[in-house]
Formats: sequence, C-alpha cells, structure tokens
Amino acid sequence: MNYIKNEVDVMNNQPIGFLDSGVGGLTVVREALKQLPNETVYYVGDTARCPYGPRPVDQIKEFTWDMVRFLLKQDVKMIVIACNTATAVALEEIKKTLDIPVVGVIVPGSRAALRETHNGRIGIIGTVGTINSEEYTKEIKRKSLDVDVLGLSCPKFVPIVESHEYQSDIAKKVVNETLSHFNASNIDTLVMGCTHYPLLKPFIKEAMGEQVKLIDSGAETVTEVSVLLDYYDISALPNSDKKEHRFFTTGSVRNFETISSDWLPIQDISVEHVDITDIGD
Amino acid sequence: MNYIKNEVDVMNNQPIGFLDSGVGGLTVVREALKQLPNETVYYVGDTARCPYGPRPVDQIKEFTWDMVRFLLKQDVKMIVIACNTATAVALEEIKKTLDIPVVGVIVPGSRAALRETHNGRIGIIGTVGTINSEEYTKEIKRKSLDVDVLGLSCPKFVPIVESHEYQSDIAKKVVNETLSHFNASNIDTLVMGCTHYPLLKPFIKEAMGEQVKLIDSGAETVTEVSVLLDYYDISALPNSDKKEHRFFTTGSVRNFETISSDWLPIQDISVEHVDITDIGD
Repeated sequence: MNYIKNEVDVMNNQPIGFLDSGVGGLTVVREALKQLPNETVYYVGDTARCPYGPRPVDQIKEFTWDMVRFLLKQDVKMIVIACNTATAVALEEIKKTLDIPVVGVIVPGSRAALRETHNGRIGIIGTVGTINSEEYTKEIKRKSLDVDVLGLSCPKFVPIVESHEYQSDIAKKVVNETLSHFNASNIDTLVMGCTHYPLLKPFIKEAMGEQVKLIDSGAETVTEVSVLLDYYDISALPNSDKKEHRFFTTGSVRNFETISSDWLPIQDISVEHVDITDIGD
Repeated sequence: MNYIKNEVDVMNNQPIGFLDSGVGGLTVVREALKQLPNETVYYVGDTARCPYGPRPVDQIKEFTWDMVRFLLKQDVKMIVIACNTATAVALEEIKKTLDIPVVGVIVPGSRAALRETHNGRIGIIGTVGTINSEEYTKEIKRKSLDVDVLGLSCPKFVPIVESHEYQSDIAKKVVNETLSHFNASNIDTLVMGCTHYPLLKPFIKEAMGEQVKLIDSGAETVTEVSVLLDYYDISALPNSDKKEHRFFTTGSVRNFETISSDWLPIQDISVEHVDITDIGD
C-alpha cells in the first residue's frame, strides 16, 4: 500500500488547467476565481469541435486527450475536466496516466446531490453522452442504494449556450419543454450535469420550481480542487509570482470573448486561438 | 513529478481511524456518521493522558504516535487526527511517514473560516498548545494576507467537557468569562479550534452573539475526508461487508460511554479499554 507520495516538486504558482468542449467550463472557472483567488487559471475550450455530447466515445476520448496534452505543455499543476461528457468517458484513463492530480465533475456533483436530497429522488440533466454513460447513476448508487436517479438528456441546451442565445426567449421555451419530462417525477434535487447548464440556470430554476434544489456540479468541483490543493500542499501563495489567466479556444475568438466577458468577473479577458490537433506527446 | 499513485490495494470496507486526546473527536465522528453513513468508524481517545493542550511538544508527538500505531494495527484505511493539538504538532510528520491518507483538522477549519468571513477578522479558540503553535494563523495567512487572525487559548474548556460538565452553569460562566476577551475585537467568524468545543457550542454561540459565524473544524474535516475517499476510490460501498463501529479509550470506560451515548446517534455503544503505550512498530 503506497499510493501517496508526499514529496511534491511542483511550484505552487503554476496554473491550474481547465478543459471543456466549449465555453461551459467557464462556469467552473467563475467558481474557482471566487473560492481560490490566488490561483492562476489556464482554460482550453474545444469550441471548433463542440458539442461533444452526441459524438462516439472513442472520439470524445481522443479530443479530450488533445486538450490534456495541450495543457500539459503549459506546465499546469492540476487538470480539471470541466466537462461532464469528457469526465464520463475519459477521466479514469487520464487520472491513471498522469502524475498530477486530475479532477472531474461527476463525483463532486453526485456527492452534493446525496447531501441535499431528502426524499431520495434525484434528477440528472446532461448531454446524450453523459446520460447514456450512466456515470451519475453509478456513482450515486455506489454510495446509496436507497436513491432513485432519473436521467434526462437535453441535446438542445449546449448549442443554445455556445451560440450565445442562453438569455433568449427561445432558450426559455426549450428549457421549459425539455424539463416538463420531470413534471410527475417528484424529484427534490436536480443535478445540472453539464457545465454549460448553469448559464441557463434562471430558466431551469423557473421550470423546476422553488422546491427542487439545483446542484451545480462545477461549483462543487471547485471545493474538491481546493481540498486537493491543500492536501498536496500545492496551493498558490498570496505573495507568489502570479501569472495572468489565459483562455484558449479552438474556435471563434470573438464568440468566446463575448461569453467569457459576460460570465467572468475579469477585466480585459484576452482569448487566444489555438490548434490542439498536432500537439504530440 | 510523481506524487500520486492510483493503484489502490486497500479494501474499501476497512474502517476509518479517528484519534483524539479524549472525547472531543466524537464531534467529528458525529459528522462522519451523518455525511458518510456507509463508513465504519474506529475511534481511540487517550483519555488517561488528556488534556494534551498544556503538554510539551515532544510529549504530544509521542502520545499521538502511540494512537496512530494502535489504529494501524486495526488495519484502518485512513487516519483522521480529530484533535487540533495533535494536528498542530504531529500531522506533518505522520502524513509524511504513513502510506495511507492522513487528515488533520486545521486546514479544513482555516479554509472554512476564509470562505465565511466578510470583514476579514477571524478569531480562533483552542488549547494552549494549538494557539501557541500558531498553526491556524500560519495556514490562514498562507492563503490570504488581508485577514487578521486573533487567537485565544481556553485552557478551562477541555477539562469541563472531559468531566461531563459541559451543560452546567459552571460551563456557561467559564465560557462567558473566557470569550469576553473578544468583546471589542470586531471578529465576524470564530473557529472552534478544538474538537471538544462543539460540545460547548450553545454557550459559545450565546457568548459571541448571532453576528459571529462559528466554524466547526471537525465538521469541515469530514467534507475533506469525503473528498479524499472519493479521490482515492476507497469509499465504503453500501452493500460492502460493514463492520461494527468500535470505540477505545485509555481511561474510564464509563465516563466515555456516558458522553458518547449523549453525543452520537448510535444505540448500545460499546467502549473498550485499551493500553496504547506498548504497541510497538
């Protein structure tokens, strides 16, 4: 039994790497900026190939590895897979392979759902990939057999967010129609099992009603990141040589800038275009 | 860089070991039973040599190692140092030496205090050992230089709890008198930096007033335990072969039984007397 080594040779002012299929992971970054103000964020969104949800498993794995390799080249000290689809499909393999901490969004979201439910009826919304993987159901059942988990894929949600229509009347209508599937379900807790979905939170809240507790997997993930930074003693110090946050997209810089400026409490966000398909090992 | 190994060969139904100088760590166990209902708890309290607070550092280290060795013989999968004095003095050394996860109470308590404070003025109450070590102040300042930390040792609190007088008028008077030191301090957050203190929480709350947020380091520690169990994939499964919780004391079984029955939601707690001074390596 020897699965913890305490000699850590990472510098604590290295950035934390976040990855997502597009802009959704920015909801996790927003939480990180709040809870971990000393940390530097490097973010990569594979907007050019978004959405990941409907893609075959092998392709999602391949694309996720492209982003991981890109972040490793930037010398990150930890990787946050801020994308439920990529977590469901690739977390285990990536965590096993890398020698830095790798965190996904499904375990923290499941933990929070179990903590919050009173009647033991939990809904999960996510992409087709996430819902079909049944990773939330497996994770929740692993901890408690007495809970019912109802999964619903919402394939229209990610495109609405990525096209910057998440505050529109169309968004409201789509959210209402989609979530009407839960009408007779009697769930008391709903996991937003896609990091894009918190951008639709006002509409989701309205559709589900006050009695349903919404879980933001991404926000829960940041608490896990905080624990692991402390546990491995790799938190950034307040007086450390802080780097600038950096944001990379494989797609349109302009669209990414619009959404990130809307969403993040940072002035003058500069977004860089990047090609991640030929990073190599 | 190779500080995480993911091959875990612990069985997930092994118990989690908790240690404390006496009964104080039971406040952490109560939280664990709530947040982690599938886990088995083994607890050792060194009641015979309690309190640890006023003892020299080397002796606290020696006594803490006695408890650690005892728990290792019980084949625990993780150790929670549910004692602030022992955490302040011995956590680093124990964490470095063992190859199972070891968690203390100071880092989680500090994280929670920083999350909760609005005016940046945090009070810490603890034993003489904990306060003199300044571990809370160091940990909080490590994360934020903009915060003022005011430490106050409360040497009368632990003996009141261990002698089962924590609901008495004397307890109320002692708490009021001791905490009057904070009267003009303008703190908005107070860390109960000793696991015995949550047993005095009603009096502490009354003395500090509604405007001061109380942090229970022990409760925060259980969230950290939960994250690490998940991260290392060593959570107990709901259908795993669950063992009985076991409680060991180096002192009076009867007194320990009275307090643990008061405090924990378990029927028929059986407490065993144990000698931990000659465990060997």
